[in-house]
This record gives sequence, C-alpha cells and structure tokens, in this order.
Amino acid sequence: MSGSVKRNAYAAILAGGSGTRMGNSEKPKQFLMLGSKPVLVHTVEKFCLAGSFDEVIVLCPEAWLRQTRDLLRKYSPAFADEVTVIAGGATRNDTVMAAVRYVEGRCESVADAVLVTHDAVRPFVSQRIIEENIEAARAHGACDTVFPATDTIVESRDAGTISAIPNRSVLYQGQTPQSFNLAKLKELMLGLTEDEKSILTDACKIFVLRGEKVALVRGDSSNMKITYPQDMRLASALLEG
Amino acid sequence: MSGSVKRNAYAAILAGGSGTRMGNSEKPKQFLMLGSKPVLVHTVEKFCLAGSFDEVIVLCPEAWLRQTRDLLRKYSPAFADEVTVIAGGATRNDTVMAAVRYVEGRCESVADAVLVTHDAVRPFVSQRIIEENIEAARAHGACDTVFPATDTIVESRDAGTISAIPNRSVLYQGQTPQSFNLAKLKELMLGLTEDEKSILTDACKIFVLRGEKVALVRGDSSNMKITYPQDMRLASALLEG
Repeated sequence: MSGSVKRNAYAAILAGGSGTRMGNSEKPKQFLMLGSKPVLVHTVEKFCLAGSFDEVIVLCPEAWLRQTRDLLRKYSPAFADEVTVIAGGATRNDTVMAAVRYVEGRCESVADAVLVTHDAVRPFVSQRIIEENIEAARAHGACDTVFPATDTIVESRDAGTISAIPNRSVLYQGQTPQSFNLAKLKELMLGLTEDEKSILTDACKIFVLRGEKVALVRGDSSNMKITYPQDMRLASALLEG
Repeated sequence: MSGSVKRNAYAAILAGGSGTRMGNSEKPKQFLMLGSKPVLVHTVEKFCLAGSFDEVIVLCPEAWLRQTRDLLRKYSPAFADEVTVIAGGATRNDTVMAAVRYVEGRCESVADAVLVTHDAVRPFVSQRIIEENIEAARAHGACDTVFPATDTIVESRDAGTISAIPNRSVLYQGQTPQSFNLAKLKELMLGLTEDEKSILTDACKIFVLRGEKVALVRGDSSNMKITYPQDMRLASALLEG
C-alpha cells in the first residue's frame, strides 16, 4: 500500500450488469446486501482504501445512477466524496470506453495514465492485487488478473460432443482487475472494426488480438465473482473469514 | 430413477486424492465432515440411491482402505453391503484402470458394461446427472459431464503473458461423472504410449485423442468439487439448501 500518493491512476468499477443469472432477484447483483453493506460498496471501498487512485469511478446503467449514489452516501459516507458515479454503456466495451472518455477529460497526462477496471461484483479483491495491477499496467501497457484453472476445461464446437480438451497447465481463469495504459487502450478500442467489436467481450482480448503484450497478475481464489444465488452464500462465508 | 433395475452398469467413486490443496488439513478431503457425514459417504449414497448399478466401487489409496470401509459402515450402514472398497493406483488413470480390471472380473458382459466414474469430492451430483450418464455412455460409448464456463479462460504458454483468450461460448468446465463403455475404455487405455499416458490426466481425453465421440451431459453449478478450504463452507451452505 502506498498511503495517499496519487499516481495518475484511475479505478473504473464496472457495475453495468443486469443480473439476469441471479434467479428471482430483480436487483442487479452489486446492490445485494453482503453483511452490513451492498456488494458494490465493499468493492468501491477496496479501491478507496488503496490510496493509489486520483479518482475512483463507478459506471452503472443510467437508470441506477441515483440509487448507486445514494447507496454510496448511506453506506460509505467517509469515501462518498472520492467516488464519481457515471453512466456506462450498452456493452462492457462501451462501458470501458465511457471510463476512458471520462478520465481523458480529467487527467493531466493521457500518455502515462493507468486505468484499472474491475467488476463491481468481485468485492474480495485484495490490496496486493490492486497494487500489482497498477505496477504491471505501468510497466507493460496492459495486465490481466488470473488464477490457474482448477477445473478441466472442455471445448465443444457443436454443444453436443467434445472437440478438444486443452492442456490445463496453460489455462487460467480470468478475474479482474484488468488494467491498461489509457492512451494505448483508447487507440486499440477506436481501431476495432465492427466485426471485431462483436467478438471482443473482454478488453484484454483487444490487446491480444493486436499482438500487444498483456502481463499476468496473480489473482486469488477468494477474488470470486458473484454470479449465481449460491455465490452470495460463499461470499457471506468469505466475509466472516 | 429406475428403482432397483440392474443394467450391467458399475459406479467407480475415485477417492484417491491426497488433499494437498486443503491447507493444514491432513485428512484427504473426502473424509472431511459435511453436515452429519463425511463427504465420501454423501457421494457414495447418491450412487446407491440411484438403484441403477450392479455394484458401487470406491477406489482409495491402500493406506486408507480400512478407514474408508469403517466410515461407510458407521455412517451408511444401510448401504455398506452394496459398496466395495478397493485400492486405486498411483495416478488417476491407474485408478480408473483398477476399476476396469475389477469390473471385468465381475460383470456378465464386458462388451456392453458401462462404467460411471465420479470424483469422491463431488457430493452434490444429482440423480438426473447419474441417469443421463448411464444413458449417454450406453448410446455413444463415452460421455463427460460439463457446465458452461462462467469465467473467461485465458491461455498463457509462458506463465507470464497472455498467449490467447479463446471464445468462451465453446468452453465448458469439466465436472464428473465421466462414463464409458467398459470394453472401449479398456482398449483405448491399453493402447496408450508412455508419452501419451503422461499428458492424459483425464479419461475422456483419451477418447478425444483417438477421435472417438464423447457426448456431453449437462452438469449443474451445484455439482461442485471440494478442493479448497473455502469450498467446505459453500458445500455446507448447499447442504442446508
């Protein structure tokens, strides 16, 4: 941890998910209560506590802007003033681009600004992971947080039979943060064709597609994503330690 | 469920793991208590309850044979007589081969016997999954239980930078059971070269390598593998429903 040193680094918390995989719950997952606070508030506080960011930005659907701001004020009054809530886009890439545009208008130097993007529904990200993301994005231009694959991964091109079982030792589960040099990210995103945009669900994939280096940051098994209802039970257990 | 109809089908519960990923716990994970019974007992009971197997076989390290038999008698007296506990091998493939050899000596017809292999540490397998495994192995010669990949999967050939991010829509997380026509499985396993054996950590992969069809059976997110300490917390939550 680096206290309150600012480093031309910006955190973008991506809270755009509609939460359609959470069963009956109509609330986006980031608003579900985890212990005494909504999931999103836990996540945002991790980035505020890092003390390494010029600004922490939360990107959520337009319709949830007010509720998101209210929640942050209610559950995290000490940090609410450090956090900016803005509208994301229709897709994850659009939301990342909205963060790029916002930071562009705020930072002193686009050329060496770092943008750390993180899923709002991964509240257990550690300070080590955040710090290593800033450092790796600064040193290499891009990095992804990953954890060695624990499951065997099976490929099926027809959804009925196995087409391949790749060697697990070279496979990792992608987590977040994913972090980037701001200028490089913007350049690559603006250079995408429409066809490329449709297959690029992941900002790191844009770098890979263009032959740019993406460094790995070691994630953590506890840096879980809250996707399914049973994930909230695991998250509660993790919170209690 | 098919009551007590026997179908020349055998279940092999693979309990060979040494549990080195469970932190301080020295007990193999299958012996950890989950609610009122060890993990292994939950798993074995699922296969006994199916009523579809001529025999349920548990394969464990030689050193744990007595304890495994004692646990089954203590925690599952109603089923203990239906279950046979035998020693597995040094590797997962050796353990599967030990099951093949055992069943060969017991079944009436090797040509159409089905072997359903399952991780001892996946106690939440459902009756649907078990039934569909028997049917798919009977119909297609081999099947694997899989669930659509929820994480982005990242490939790194040098463990330092990303080499590829495959399209997630064709990727699945391998679960178990994996089920096979016994004669076909034996033939393919005996035909492996030493080099092939060293890369084949997974019996389905042997079929894929030889161009044989492996059908997919839809798994379940609750059919989790207990690998890490925090997995026991999720398992307890799932048990309580």
